[in-house]
Amino acid sequence: MAKHLVIMAGGIGSRFWPMSTPQKPKQFIDITGCGRTMIQQTFDRFDGIIDIDHVWVVTSASFKELVAEQLTGINPQHILLEPCMRNTAPCVAYVSWKIQKEDPEALIVVAPSDHLVMKTDAFKAAIAKGFEFVAQGDRILTLGMTPTRPETGYGYIEQGTEACPGIFNLAAFREKPDLQTAISYLEKGGYTWNSGMFMWSAATIVEELRKYASQIAGVMDQILPAMFTDREQEVVNELFPTCEKISIDYAVMEKTQVAFVQPAEFGWSDLGTWGSLHTLTAHDDADNAVIGDSVRMIEASGNMVKVPDGKQVVIQGLKNCIVSEHNGVLLICQLSEEQRIKEWHD
Amino acid sequence: MAKHLVIMAGGIGSRFWPMSTPQKPKQFIDITGCGRTMIQQTFDRFDGIIDIDHVWVVTSASFKELVAEQLTGINPQHILLEPCMRNTAPCVAYVSWKIQKEDPEALIVVAPSDHLVMKTDAFKAAIAKGFEFVAQGDRILTLGMTPTRPETGYGYIEQGTEACPGIFNLAAFREKPDLQTAISYLEKGGYTWNSGMFMWSAATIVEELRKYASQIAGVMDQILPAMFTDREQEVVNELFPTCEKISIDYAVMEKTQVAFVQPAEFGWSDLGTWGSLHTLTAHDDADNAVIGDSVRMIEASGNMVKVPDGKQVVIQGLKNCIVSEHNGVLLICQLSEEQRIKEWHD
Repeated sequence: MAKHLVIMAGGIGSRFWPMSTPQKPKQFIDITGCGRTMIQQTFDRFDGIIDIDHVWVVTSASFKELVAEQLTGINPQHILLEPCMRNTAPCVAYVSWKIQKEDPEALIVVAPSDHLVMKTDAFKAAIAKGFEFVAQGDRILTLGMTPTRPETGYGYIEQGTEACPGIFNLAAFREKPDLQTAISYLEKGGYTWNSGMFMWSAATIVEELRKYASQIAGVMDQILPAMFTDREQEVVNELFPTCEKISIDYAVMEKTQVAFVQPAEFGWSDLGTWGSLHTLTAHDDADNAVIGDSVRMIEASGNMVKVPDGKQVVIQGLKNCIVSEHNGVLLICQLSEEQRIKEWHD
Repeated sequence: MAKHLVIMAGGIGSRFWPMSTPQKPKQFIDITGCGRTMIQQTFDRFDGIIDIDHVWVVTSASFKELVAEQLTGINPQHILLEPCMRNTAPCVAYVSWKIQKEDPEALIVVAPSDHLVMKTDAFKAAIAKGFEFVAQGDRILTLGMTPTRPETGYGYIEQGTEACPGIFNLAAFREKPDLQTAISYLEKGGYTWNSGMFMWSAATIVEELRKYASQIAGVMDQILPAMFTDREQEVVNELFPTCEKISIDYAVMEKTQVAFVQPAEFGWSDLGTWGSLHTLTAHDDADNAVIGDSVRMIEASGNMVKVPDGKQVVIQGLKNCIVSEHNGVLLICQLSEEQRIKEWHD
């Protein structure tokens, strides 16, 4: 049973403006300044686990070239283009039907393209363990991130009884909690962050989608004959928009009888905000996280600075701000106000 | 007696970094965003008073091309290149000797190249009045700016008795005062800011320099035969550096018996600092002075922003700061710390 990787790369990352733009969102940008974009880092961390011939990307039609450029060597047939955003269930369905057509025995890991993982070894161990588990039968596995703080920005997964060592029955999904609730989750234990990473066999997810998302499954059955043919995109463009707009969590995960959660800790972040980048990037003594090799900080503290390498910048007396320049667009704002960034552009 | 204009353009404007650089200092930059550089504005405001054939520029050898580019139509023989900085007395001497050689009857106004004048009509009236005065004989006239606030960043001129309507004997130069003294000047009256603008005939200034700066006059006499010949620059390069390093204020103004001051008010500033630019530029309701046509200010107040037109900038929550980008170099600092800007670059 061959292992396949599906990278979900349709997001638009509007909270990371000006670095992230609708034309080139977060997943296609080297946000951390490490020399690799987020989608490249996502690809890289499966090295040794997934063969490049088994890598799939689902993205928006407008990002086709970006994917092909950044993930060189990937099979063009494996870049799936959504003509419009229909949330994650139709997207998962499309790629699952297609993988199953090519490889009915396929085991699949689904990963967002724009998340950060700091501990690659722990990550690889978790993925290996997960594949072992889902290879044993009809199982829908989600990776739950062991919480390190009472985070209110993530959804939580509540564990049930232990199904096998380190893997639990999934008791319930919990929406983003308020602080009080988040603290209680942390104190009680048995709650993990919903990372958006899933593992299953192609057969299982197709079956579960047929059961719980029959409208979407019906559309996929219509598209199926055109898959891997010259007509595929045309048919997808026509039929995909007719899919119900629903997340895989709501469509399948909350209803299926075979859901499991595997808690894991590998330095994960969804890098959803400048603040999370600030938390995760190396700091100087004054709590500044600076990405950019020609930045001078003077009497400045608590700032998140991200500018291109080579750009000469002097910052004096600034506190707890974001300074970001990308494609010649400059943003200076308070870190505390970052949720409003998307209101300020376009 | 023809009227000549001498523009002093040798300064290096280090306090205006990153806009002003040693390669292209303040006078060659469109600081106010009006579409004309400071030296062009200086030239423009003498329109109708001084014929272009009577415009002279003294500058550093490295700025020769900048002057020629920005003041098109100026006689190349009238761009005088100092091989090194020797303060203002040798510079005034060189151009005065040269003007006198071409036009012994010349009347001269000397003006810095990087100052701001807001009220051009009042300026022209003051210059006309000054020329009338210095045309009448051996007179060294300085224009004193009527103070509008107890400024401690300028030198002051103390007036003596009124020599003729609106023109006074010059009693004394006063160094930059402390705030207490500046307030007393304002209360007493009879004190004006030293603008660095002078008027005289070529004959008078040459005579006064012979009297009070004989070393410099001696060097100029040696250079004189080479002026307007192919050898001029070579001889200047050899002899000019031997001049005493001294300002025209110290060398002549404080000693001469024929010094006068004409108080005037034409919205003048030496634009010596970002703060003065902030004071003089149009403000929004939140006291932001913004130069740049694509800047969005949100909950920001008291800032001085200067970025290129077309550069998209969003600034939120910033207070009393300078934000300047020039040639791709970005400075963000507190307005109160602007005197330290020169420490932060090179």
